[in-house]
Amino acid sequence: MKKALFAAVVGIFTLTVSGAVLAQAKPETLVKQRQAAMTLQGKYFGPMGGMAQGKIPYNADVVKRNTAYLDALSHMPWDGFTAGTQDIKSKTRPAAYSDAAKFKEAQDRFTGEVTKLVTTVAGGNEASIKTQINAVAKSCGGCHDDFRDK
Amino acid sequence: MKKALFAAVVGIFTLTVSGAVLAQAKPETLVKQRQAAMTLQGKYFGPMGGMAQGKIPYNADVVKRNTAYLDALSHMPWDGFTAGTQDIKSKTRPAAYSDAAKFKEAQDRFTGEVTKLVTTVAGGNEASIKTQINAVAKSCGGCHDDFRDK
Repeated sequence: MKKALFAAVVGIFTLTVSGAVLAQAKPETLVKQRQAAMTLQGKYFGPMGGMAQGKIPYNADVVKRNTAYLDALSHMPWDGFTAGTQDIKSKTRPAAYSDAAKFKEAQDRFTGEVTKLVTTVAGGNEASIKTQINAVAKSCGGCHDDFRDK
Repeated sequence: MKKALFAAVVGIFTLTVSGAVLAQAKPETLVKQRQAAMTLQGKYFGPMGGMAQGKIPYNADVVKRNTAYLDALSHMPWDGFTAGTQDIKSKTRPAAYSDAAKFKEAQDRFTGEVTKLVTTVAGGNEASIKTQINAVAKSCGGCHDDFRDK
């Protein structure tokens, strides 16, 4: 790799860094990052939701992998809802900012259900896993119901 | 949560599911998902790059958390580069499709360096961790150099 490119790559990182660490990331960047986390939650939760509903065959390997990814992803969106992002166009409802405590409760319910899914998947009981996948789905929907436009 | 909403949520999941499992996700969705993974790699690698370059203070807790997230994220983009996505507008160069073997090598170099970072971070030696963070940065740049427009 050429030195100039390396310098450019480091430059990009540095810009990102300053923002992330000093909590001065541009609001547009924070919205893009939180939406990216939601997009990937959909990618990896989607197939598990279908399995729990019996719409596609159950695949234990996919469930194991996707649950591990979802465990990481479930923590990623929330620091992107800073007050500074309120005026950026998105599907987020004003209540996410005006009722931050209730929004935080909904986030915690979701991450809690995902944590339970990790434990349940480790246990390996298919019926229990499907039940817990549905519990995660419900916690997604609970948050979208109050804090996200259709 | 209302039943109608629950049904809607499951409906969305099912759409995603069918695509993901039958490898029939819309090319636009695959591009959006792979870009989301890159966006989040930037979010979590960025601060570590800055620490390795001495531009921001080293923070072992942030490095530990971000490395765990990066470990998951490093595997997420690659199934989004299917042949069907070639005509979707993005910064991906034609070489990613025409020289798939070389592209795969570059992906594996990156995921390999991230795996090494996980081990190095577990070891806890700050100097070694910084060196390995720079190795990850180089593997990002190596792939961007050949397969991504500036």
